[in-house]
This record gives sequence, structure tokens and C-alpha cells, in this order.
Amino acid sequence: MNDKGRPDIGAGHPICIAVDWGTTRFRAHLVAEDGTLIDSIASDDGMSSVSDGAFEGVLSGMCSAWLGRFPGIPILMAGMVGSRNGWKEVPYVSCPAGLPEIAGGMVSLQLASGSPIHIVPGLTTDDAAADVMRGEETQILGLGASDAVVILPGTHSKWAVIRAGRVETFRTFMTGEFYSLLTHHSVLRLLAEPPTDDFAARAASRLGVAAAATGGGLLNLAFHARTGVLAGRLKPQDVEPYLSGLLIGEEIAKARRLVPPDLPLMLVADGVIADHYREAVEATGGTVSLVDPERTFVDGLLRIARHNKETAHVRSR
Amino acid sequence: MNDKGRPDIGAGHPICIAVDWGTTRFRAHLVAEDGTLIDSIASDDGMSSVSDGAFEGVLSGMCSAWLGRFPGIPILMAGMVGSRNGWKEVPYVSCPAGLPEIAGGMVSLQLASGSPIHIVPGLTTDDAAADVMRGEETQILGLGASDAVVILPGTHSKWAVIRAGRVETFRTFMTGEFYSLLTHHSVLRLLAEPPTDDFAARAASRLGVAAAATGGGLLNLAFHARTGVLAGRLKPQDVEPYLSGLLIGEEIAKARRLVPPDLPLMLVADGVIADHYREAVEATGGTVSLVDPERTFVDGLLRIARHNKETAHVRSR
Repeated sequence: MNDKGRPDIGAGHPICIAVDWGTTRFRAHLVAEDGTLIDSIASDDGMSSVSDGAFEGVLSGMCSAWLGRFPGIPILMAGMVGSRNGWKEVPYVSCPAGLPEIAGGMVSLQLASGSPIHIVPGLTTDDAAADVMRGEETQILGLGASDAVVILPGTHSKWAVIRAGRVETFRTFMTGEFYSLLTHHSVLRLLAEPPTDDFAARAASRLGVAAAATGGGLLNLAFHARTGVLAGRLKPQDVEPYLSGLLIGEEIAKARRLVPPDLPLMLVADGVIADHYREAVEATGGTVSLVDPERTFVDGLLRIARHNKETAHVRSR
Repeated sequence: MNDKGRPDIGAGHPICIAVDWGTTRFRAHLVAEDGTLIDSIASDDGMSSVSDGAFEGVLSGMCSAWLGRFPGIPILMAGMVGSRNGWKEVPYVSCPAGLPEIAGGMVSLQLASGSPIHIVPGLTTDDAAADVMRGEETQILGLGASDAVVILPGTHSKWAVIRAGRVETFRTFMTGEFYSLLTHHSVLRLLAEPPTDDFAARAASRLGVAAAATGGGLLNLAFHARTGVLAGRLKPQDVEPYLSGLLIGEEIAKARRLVPPDLPLMLVADGVIADHYREAVEATGGTVSLVDPERTFVDGLLRIARHNKETAHVRSR
């Protein structure tokens, strides 16, 4: 924003507002035609804190400067906002699914101020696991990858298999949530102290990755975080990075057995998480290419929007 | 107790008070020479709720009727009461360890009223895992088994390898704690309802055991408790038994890879837990013999007491 509280549109004329609205976070971007992010905002107004009926108010309030300046600008949204507990339930689209199926599954609303809203559907696997995702399908489309395994780390990490540009299938791993449970609620937290030294934390994380590779399983290997401190082999500052490495290593070991070994691995992550996953994949003899999560989310929304514009054009001819 | 609040000692003359004092529970028995439990008491005064310095008061209060009637009666204790956060830290004894090493590692105190107190040491494995137990060593001794694998389910389940009557080594599995974390603190609890039908719960538990046998790992297989309900394959009442079966199945699968396959399996458990473990072991083609946890705990304390009496006798000759 500039100092008048108005978006600076020097970077290009805005064509839409792109919203990533998940369980715990709201993020929105004012996007130019060439994909440039003209302006961005974020808050903690996720599904878990916004009450039913309050969604329109939150969205209008957060984006008021943009909506005031660009009346009727389209709003594209993806994430848990389209779930049963979100603003408007958008039915899952079954895998395999590519751009046409996902774009065709969008559900539209209208803001009182006139802006049309389009919510991207999540995906479900058409097998016994009946796995689900919401939001990650948009990031995957944004990659524009033809054939790849896409890794999307998070509270519920996803591993998706892409063939001929379509999501063939995917699996969820509760890695981030298990980390939170063990470090906040388990007996292991009693001996833990926050890491203070990056170098030591990386070493402890590598110990966790190596432990996972033994295949001993989380029920036993997590307990080593306790016995290691009791025996003086680990410091209290090592507990959290050890558990992080253990869980990431376990996720990668189990996931790689499920996905085709011949496809390149693409990692949608940034910061410390990206470093940890890349290192853990490399420890098992793989390589990954790294993709920025925010960039690929906006790119996915733009691809969907353009696809719908083109099909509307074809249909109207 | 009889109606005068005095123990009924018709069953035999008491020779000791046997105390199982753990993290969350206090249990004590007045024991006759032939091992009969003359009287028993229990409370929630575990290590986590008794403050430092209050142990003698809790013990004297709980056992006041017995101590008043049988002044100077010896008190034998095992469990977390001997830990760093317990009444008196009793150093771990290293495996392999049998009756002489464990009995020799006891630490003694004296109640103000005159009763001698003897606390049994826990065990530690003399390897990289540096695993630990407190309380289970007493149950294992009570079995009097020569060669066996002993399974002790719990918050932190133990699998112990017994050779020639000695605990050769053991491993901990955080099965009960993971169950508590997932059913109380994870996203999986949101779709769960308490089981109402035993038959349906057993079926859901078997689904969990079968899932564990696929080797897909907890991070993914636990999430099936959510996707199963979303897809209508599981009922909300199935979530908890499915997770229980999954965790027990995972424990058994991982533990059996660590223990010698030729030894008989002994299961120290009762009630529903015993049923679930036995069924899960049988599902993987094994058999177990069942042992009562309370009985084998008291038998273990009596063996230790008799051993020390005999050695004292030998030494004094």
C-alpha cells in the first residue's frame, strides 16, 4: 500500500483479487494481468476463527481499499473456504483431474458490492483411501508440470502424482500436526527446550531423519527423544529438531514407496521447511526442485481464470 | 476392609504392604505370606499430582489402617516413585538384569512410624536406545518366566526379551500416549463420537489393525480416520476404535521385527486392552498367553523380598 492507504498500481492494471483462505490464515493479493502481485494482505481470520455468516464481512473488510478503487473486480478463492465448514461448500472433484475438471467445478457467489466470487473445488481420490485436499490443487495447477511428484509440506502434507498435466492421485501425511501434538502435548515436551543454535538443530534434525530410515516406527523412535536426553546423548534443545527430522524422514520414506520412482520431485515450500525437506530427500538419495508456495498459488488461480474465460469465449461463439 | 474400617486378616497373616506408585495412580495391597491379597486400596495420587515432600504423608494416610494394626510392617514399592521426580531416585540397573541385580539395586527408607520401605530400581538398556522402564521390571520378575517375550501394554508399552530368567533388553512404544494425543488433541477428534456398539467397535478396531499391516505408516493411515468418515465408509463411532487398532497393530508389527521370533509371547494385561492386543497378535499369526498385571506385580515384589531375605540369611551365616 502507498501512504494514502491505496494500492500502488504502478506495477500493472489489476485483473483480480486472489485469496488463499485456509483453516488458520487469510491471505489475499491484488494481481496484475501479467501475474505481478501489486499488493498483498494477510490475517489470522481462518475458518477456525470466522463464524458462519461472517465470511462476507471479513472479506469485504480486508479488501476494502482494493474493492473501493476497482469496483466489480473478480475475486478468486481456494482453500478451506470451500469446505463444509467454510463460506460455501464446493463439491470435491474426483481424481484424475486436470485444469478443465477443476475449473469446471468452481462455484460462484456475488459480493453485495458487485464483485463476482469464484471458489475453486478441492480434490478427492477415487479409491479406498478417499483422500482429500483443498487449496493444494491450485498450487499444483500453478506449477504447470506435465509429469511430476509434487510435495506440499504442511499440517497435513500432500504428495501428488501428476501425469500428462493431471493430478492422478495423492496422499496426505499428518506430519505437521503430529509435530505439534508431540511438542505441545506429549511427555516429550517435558524435557525439551527451544533450540538456540542452528548448527546443533540441523545436526539433531539429521539424527531424526536417520532414525526414521531404520524403519523402527514412530511409536518407538519418538521415545528416543526422551531417553536420549535422560542418557545425555541429546540436549534438551535437540528434542524439537530431532522430532521434526524423524517425522519428515518418516513421511518421505513412506510416501516414496507410494509414488512412481521415475518422476521428478517438486517441493512447494520455502524457508526452513524447504531446507529440511530438501535435506531429508537428499539423505535418501533423491533430488527436488523448489517452488515458491505463494507464487504457484496465484499462478494456479490465474490459469483457472484464463481457462474459464477461454471456454466461455468458445462457448459463446 | 471390614465394617470397622479394619482389614480382614482372615485370609492369612500379612507380611508386607506392596505399593505400585506410578505417574497417575497409587495402588497398595496388604499381602499375606502365601501371596494372597488381604486388602487393596487405590487413588489418583500419582507422581504428577503429589508434590515434593508430600510422599510420606500420602503413603501414611492411605495405609493408616494397616500401619496402625501391624506396626513396623515392611513396605515394598515399585514404579515412578523411584524416579528423579518421585520420592527418592533409585538408579537404573543396566540390562541384562535378573532377580539378583534388581533386588541388589533397591534403595531403602524408613517411615516415621517405623516401617522400613524398599524401592525397586527401574531398568535401562545398555545400548544406543538407552531405553528405560520403572515398575514393569517387577511385573516381569513376577512371571518367573525363563525364556519369553513379555508385552506390557500401556501409555508407554514395553516389549521385553527374557532369556534364562533375565531381562536381556526391551523397547518402549508410545502407543497409549499417541492414542490419547490423537483422540483428544488432533483434527481427528472433530469427526469422532464415543463408540456405542461393542460389535461395531471391534470391527473398526480390526480395520485399524489391518491398515497397520499394510506398512503405510501412522502419518498417512491415521488420516484415514478422517477421510473414512467424510466418505461415509466409517461412522463417527468408528474413529476411536479404528485409531486404537491402528496404533496397537503398528506397535505389534514394529515390535515383532525387533524380538526373537522363537520365544513365546506373554501379555501382561486385562480387560478390553488384553482382548485388543491378543486379537491383534493373532491377526498377525501369533499366539499369546495372558497374565494378570496386578497379580504378577505383587508376585514380583514378593520374589524380590524373598531373594533379599535369603541372601541376608546366607550373608549372616
